[in-house]
Amino acid sequence: MGTMSQESALIEQVIEQPDSLVISPPSDLSSYNHIQPFVYLEGDNDNDSKTTTSQTNHNVLLILNQKITIDLISLWNKCEIIVCADGGADSLYEYFSNNNNNHHHPNLQRSDYIPDYIVGDFDSISPDVKAYYQSHGSKTIRQSSEYYNDFTKSIHCIQLHYQLNHENGNWFESVNNVDGLAKLWDSLDHTNRGIDITIYVLNAIGGRFDQTVQSINQLYIMNKIYPTVTVFFITVNDIIFLLKKGVNYVSFTNRLTFHKDDGLPPTCGLLPLSNSTPIVLTSYGLKYDMRNWKTEMSGKVSSSNRISGETGFIVECSDDIVMNIEIDV
Amino acid sequence: MGTMSQESALIEQVIEQPDSLVISPPSDLSSYNHIQPFVYLEGDNDNDSKTTTSQTNHNVLLILNQKITIDLISLWNKCEIIVCADGGADSLYEYFSNNNNNHHHPNLQRSDYIPDYIVGDFDSISPDVKAYYQSHGSKTIRQSSEYYNDFTKSIHCIQLHYQLNHENGNWFESVNNVDGLAKLWDSLDHTNRGIDITIYVLNAIGGRFDQTVQSINQLYIMNKIYPTVTVFFITVNDIIFLLKKGVNYVSFTNRLTFHKDDGLPPTCGLLPLSNSTPIVLTSYGLKYDMRNWKTEMSGKVSSSNRISGETGFIVECSDDIVMNIEIDV
Repeated sequence: MGTMSQESALIEQVIEQPDSLVISPPSDLSSYNHIQPFVYLEGDNDNDSKTTTSQTNHNVLLILNQKITIDLISLWNKCEIIVCADGGADSLYEYFSNNNNNHHHPNLQRSDYIPDYIVGDFDSISPDVKAYYQSHGSKTIRQSSEYYNDFTKSIHCIQLHYQLNHENGNWFESVNNVDGLAKLWDSLDHTNRGIDITIYVLNAIGGRFDQTVQSINQLYIMNKIYPTVTVFFITVNDIIFLLKKGVNYVSFTNRLTFHKDDGLPPTCGLLPLSNSTPIVLTSYGLKYDMRNWKTEMSGKVSSSNRISGETGFIVECSDDIVMNIEIDV
Repeated sequence: MGTMSQESALIEQVIEQPDSLVISPPSDLSSYNHIQPFVYLEGDNDNDSKTTTSQTNHNVLLILNQKITIDLISLWNKCEIIVCADGGADSLYEYFSNNNNNHHHPNLQRSDYIPDYIVGDFDSISPDVKAYYQSHGSKTIRQSSEYYNDFTKSIHCIQLHYQLNHENGNWFESVNNVDGLAKLWDSLDHTNRGIDITIYVLNAIGGRFDQTVQSINQLYIMNKIYPTVTVFFITVNDIIFLLKKGVNYVSFTNRLTFHKDDGLPPTCGLLPLSNSTPIVLTSYGLKYDMRNWKTEMSGKVSSSNRISGETGFIVECSDDIVMNIEIDV
């Protein structure tokens, strides 16, 4: 009998839901992963000074090398520190040359938006841009190692900043310019729980496809190595993040924060890109809700799904899986 | 002894090669997959009439719904038939509104570039665009089924065209407007070997991330179901295709066809996105050539690699794997 009911519970199902649902948070508060992807779009976006949304969580903006096509300023103002990976500094510099970006913020001054750190092998940053930001106070950390990419070097920099900067604002000056960040990071005691850091990354997705896939690869790897670091990739189309093995509750103030009302709920996808598939999904609050639904590449993938939950939804997954949610404001 | 040499042959290695190498095709002509991704950029690009590069292979252009950012005309002229998936027709129409696209071809007329078929559920094509192309001779095939996406519907249309159009130019008129293409395709006798078709797909990659991943998923699935259909996804950054299990020889006239000489060889990646990993790779002709190199997501992925082979390279893989090559002309 027990076996019977277990079997029936494992029947694979897709349930078409109404466009609007109210989903309560999971009942056991201690045992789920709570994700709030749109905090950076909520609240005081037009405040022109850097603020933090929370005293307990550190928000960081990381800019990679590609043209910036989103409204940068709202995100900038939510972040404690800003890091440019190599040519990401050129992208930032260029952003202030393009008047099209500035209709929300007509009085933008390049000199008011200076990154805290510029990190990388410096094979793509232009000398003028580097000189400009150095003269305005950016800390430049050259790391020539080909073993680490600019993204990974930047992650080391961000974590070291939170471990060391409050003791010594010049902590980076003694690192060697090959792989000093990695060496310094490895030398520290990581036995205590890591620091909670949320990193919003621009330009990691949507350029050359091998870079896109490497970014996704790093998303999986970072979750294993640094479980207290949360990464959101932001593109002009969507936000991309990891749902962790177990129960995930994704919440927001309301759907209008990230999706203008066009009569249809916001679009999303659940993307089984890891080496550990199939993944079994059960969801509450999606348009096409799944029960024990097996997903894998070369098989079934939930794309063009939609979010019916007015303030959030729940996804239970048998292993880490990538999610994207359309941003359309 | 035999065991020893087998073991040493299986040692995982990365060999840094010079920027320029000449790689001969694999010796056993019958047993490799020959891929020529840049045929569409070679030869008579500026010929303003539709031509086929080969009498034995059918080239098709499939346009999905996203802004067209590449030089469309060279590709158009290499293709026998053109198919727009739903709002892809709007993308095509818009292309001829944008003078920025036309500096290579200043006398472009929208009315000279009429797609052969427009296929999909027609929830995104605008009525004016549909009427325009219908009045200029496009065949519109509405398929409202939600079970198939517009990409899959278009693939059915393309294959049916090559099976049926020479007998009856109005073959599509009797299909039902829900899932008639799929039904008609299933009803045909597929016991003979399929027809060799090469499909160049625009706008499948680089938009919303769930659509990008679903395109890659379909690339794997189509290779299983339709092994005689070759798919190339073309973006503003690169070309993306499948290397098949076994030996693959990727060749081109020379690297300048797709990569301007900036002192570095063209960039590429090998991307293990299937459900069957790790994949073991051995390559000849890449900057970072691999021997028995195990790749998987959440592990090692070859990104930012480069092509050293002047006219081609060889990749042997233990299972199907996605490859991208940067286009930078």
